[in-house]
Amino acid sequence: MSTRRGRRGGGRGARRAERLARVIEQQPFLTRRLDQNQVLSAEGMEIIEHNADTLLEQVGIEVVDFPEALAIFSDGGAEVDGTRVRFPRGMCREIISRRAPSSFVQHARNPQRSVTIGDPHTVFAPAYGSPFVRDRDEGRRYATIEDFRNFTKLTYMSPALHHGGGTLCEPVDLPIETRHLDMIYSHVVLHDKPFMSSVTRPERAQDSVDLAKVVFGEQFVADNTVLIGLCNANSPMQWDRAMLGSAQVLAENNQCVLITPFIIVGAMSPVTVAATATQTLAEAMAAMSFTQLVRPGAPVIMGSFATTMSMQTGAPTFGTPEAALALLAIRRLAARLGVPFRSGGNLTASKIPDAQAAYESFMTFLPALSAGVNFVLHSAGWLEGGLTMSYEKFVLDADQISMMARLVGGVDLSENGLALDALLSNEPGQHFLGAEHTLTNFESAFWVSDLGDNSSFEQWELDGALTSVDRAHAEWNRLLSDYEAPPIDDAVRAELEDWIMARKATLLPDSPA
Amino acid sequence: MSTRRGRRGGGRGARRAERLARVIEQQPFLTRRLDQNQVLSAEGMEIIEHNADTLLEQVGIEVVDFPEALAIFSDGGAEVDGTRVRFPRGMCREIISRRAPSSFVQHARNPQRSVTIGDPHTVFAPAYGSPFVRDRDEGRRYATIEDFRNFTKLTYMSPALHHGGGTLCEPVDLPIETRHLDMIYSHVVLHDKPFMSSVTRPERAQDSVDLAKVVFGEQFVADNTVLIGLCNANSPMQWDRAMLGSAQVLAENNQCVLITPFIIVGAMSPVTVAATATQTLAEAMAAMSFTQLVRPGAPVIMGSFATTMSMQTGAPTFGTPEAALALLAIRRLAARLGVPFRSGGNLTASKIPDAQAAYESFMTFLPALSAGVNFVLHSAGWLEGGLTMSYEKFVLDADQISMMARLVGGVDLSENGLALDALLSNEPGQHFLGAEHTLTNFESAFWVSDLGDNSSFEQWELDGALTSVDRAHAEWNRLLSDYEAPPIDDAVRAELEDWIMARKATLLPDSPA
Repeated sequence: MSTRRGRRGGGRGARRAERLARVIEQQPFLTRRLDQNQVLSAEGMEIIEHNADTLLEQVGIEVVDFPEALAIFSDGGAEVDGTRVRFPRGMCREIISRRAPSSFVQHARNPQRSVTIGDPHTVFAPAYGSPFVRDRDEGRRYATIEDFRNFTKLTYMSPALHHGGGTLCEPVDLPIETRHLDMIYSHVVLHDKPFMSSVTRPERAQDSVDLAKVVFGEQFVADNTVLIGLCNANSPMQWDRAMLGSAQVLAENNQCVLITPFIIVGAMSPVTVAATATQTLAEAMAAMSFTQLVRPGAPVIMGSFATTMSMQTGAPTFGTPEAALALLAIRRLAARLGVPFRSGGNLTASKIPDAQAAYESFMTFLPALSAGVNFVLHSAGWLEGGLTMSYEKFVLDADQISMMARLVGGVDLSENGLALDALLSNEPGQHFLGAEHTLTNFESAFWVSDLGDNSSFEQWELDGALTSVDRAHAEWNRLLSDYEAPPIDDAVRAELEDWIMARKATLLPDSPA
Repeated sequence: MSTRRGRRGGGRGARRAERLARVIEQQPFLTRRLDQNQVLSAEGMEIIEHNADTLLEQVGIEVVDFPEALAIFSDGGAEVDGTRVRFPRGMCREIISRRAPSSFVQHARNPQRSVTIGDPHTVFAPAYGSPFVRDRDEGRRYATIEDFRNFTKLTYMSPALHHGGGTLCEPVDLPIETRHLDMIYSHVVLHDKPFMSSVTRPERAQDSVDLAKVVFGEQFVADNTVLIGLCNANSPMQWDRAMLGSAQVLAENNQCVLITPFIIVGAMSPVTVAATATQTLAEAMAAMSFTQLVRPGAPVIMGSFATTMSMQTGAPTFGTPEAALALLAIRRLAARLGVPFRSGGNLTASKIPDAQAAYESFMTFLPALSAGVNFVLHSAGWLEGGLTMSYEKFVLDADQISMMARLVGGVDLSENGLALDALLSNEPGQHFLGAEHTLTNFESAFWVSDLGDNSSFEQWELDGALTSVDRAHAEWNRLLSDYEAPPIDDAVRAELEDWIMARKATLLPDSPA
């Protein structure tokens, strides 16, 4: 973006002013004017929906270690047999379609960063859940809270990321009992975008809600959505207490649950796209209806994470056409339920941010854009099937996704966009560089990458023949060095710290403060 | 593809047999079942079409140094004023819609390699026109005929490339007067896929036609299309003798002309997508109607190459959202004319096959697939804005595009695809790896990259921590070492060589044979 440019020229003061202006810049979440890709006919969707209902009716879902959920399902009209829950045909769809909102606002502590999740919008969040991090010079290593904080800062500094995400990487140097508190603390104080709940146990989801009340105020949280919690199925057709219990806590508090069947196709579902779509729909409908039985109207997002595998080695594979088709198909099924949809991300199996990483990433990310996904987790930083969060790939991905608002914005057919006068007043063979229309529009005419090199071969060699990774390495270091925390009320911050200290004392009574 | 795999295991004889089986494999050209992306409303398209007609009516095109074309346009109903040709509203569209075929077969000397160009098909051809080549070990250097031959062989060895292309790189070590003969000779004897005509001068297009007659027989060439010639406008609104003259030769001989306005947006057209689409349509309609005035029914492809630029430095930029939107929009306009469409390619400004190269490539290539482009030139090898043909990127691109047939094939809704029995007979929590449906389908279930690394981090390190470029380097060397020329009739080959020797003696009389 032109406002992010101009690193050369100007004095120190000018650069400083520019840097500050830049820090507070944020690209708005995307609003789509392009049509969505129609991968399935209405008849095709009806067949898959019918089969998903058959699956829910005949096989049902297994609810592991969570009797309370069985009672909720039973009260809602499902048939419970031991730990198995079977659903009368149409029950889940009816509950979801009638009760779940088609879109909702997730509030950030800086109101300018609040996002609307649902059609025709798209919101980007960073990658989630890696135990490792990697950078060019230090290679791959276990993630620490320092890395977590760095990625929180990089997210803040990336205008194309609308959302702070959740477990940006797993801070394995902190006790597992309390690290969720440290992560949420970082999300609150180091950036001001929306963020995600802890969900590894229902108690941690409750901690997330309680912390949010400190930040936003109790009444505000009761009336508004400020958290999204990611709840994955144990596919095929299983939901456990950690996930459904966290979903329950969030839904009770009117917070958003992101229901995602996480499927390695061939292992956790049959090897075909249509069957994977059927199973994803069934698993998601069961859990989404659970949230609506807990609290009608609580925001819920239907998610899908479906990737293929190598049938030779069992390794998950990314950027394959089957995964892209599954994404396109399941997105259409979610639209017919009337709920927001999550999928996609810049996913790859590559160990480094090389050509493989970029091809694979875009082979998921661009279909996600084409499908009109509403919430794109794993938009930036993902390497190695999600095991590693990469500093360089984070900024490379963030740079690329900064173009997507323009893509989904479609073609400008205004008088200025049509530019008929410019066309008619120009002689054949005469260039347009000096035309009045060009001079009026050139500054904002084109998206320009911050990290791509468009110079001549000779200039590129003179500049040191840098690779994408080299430029990305310089960029994330520059961002961290330029970082300044957004303002936060001192009283809120102190209350937050007190709350966390007290909670840690309860969770880890033997640990030194 | 599973048939391309299995490099490990088996004896030498088995590997050799497999290699040969592999050499003659060819993926069929793509047949689309997915819908095409609808970027413009019918009303939007009508506005742009109206403006293109206004441009042709009021400004018209300048025809440089080619009085014969002026006469042809005048006879066809255009208004000629000096070297300016203006078209009554609707004239070009009427001529093209009524006369130009909506699809056609381009014949290869191996009939199994012939391709159909038009909806719902897509054909991939390699990059075209680079003066330089690059590989990992020797870096960037001027291209030679040896490089040209190598890329001809690599094209033959790449099952996902359906078409041999044309100027795979410019053999600058050969005299410019005769190098087109050496290039066509390589296309004929080193592979057996369809290929392109020379178009740098009308005489060279005629040489291409005459050589084709030697290969295919005079009557066959009179009755069938065996050549495509790439004719670019001198935008804005100019056509010269080299291009229109070559188009005339090809059309007279019932060979295909690929009419492509080549536009750096902002310099050669106004800075907006809609205006660039308007101008592209006007320029292409003028030249396409020329081919139909020369010979009604001669095959013609409407092309678009529209890329953005850095308004700071003037450098062309690739993989931008504006270029993707222009591609999507112009593709819809071509569909309404009822002619096949060419655009796209794996385009990049990067100097090396790094992450930038791959992101930028797919930001053009995937929209091209999404739009349903019929002929995709520059599918493999392109670097540095087309100045360089890269050995490593060639095989990386070819590997990636081998998945695209599956992508556009859409979702299989057959009984086997729906797999309802597999879903209903599986218990919750039980994996599908041993299911009968999985065992029946696993070999062909998923596309697998030949060049991606999906192994664990530990295995990848043990294997030498190779990058995409390292694996690609090994791959193209292996392909060249495995290469064996497809059979060709000795008499045809001898006649071809005699013809070329005689023609060279005419074109370069002072040169030693």
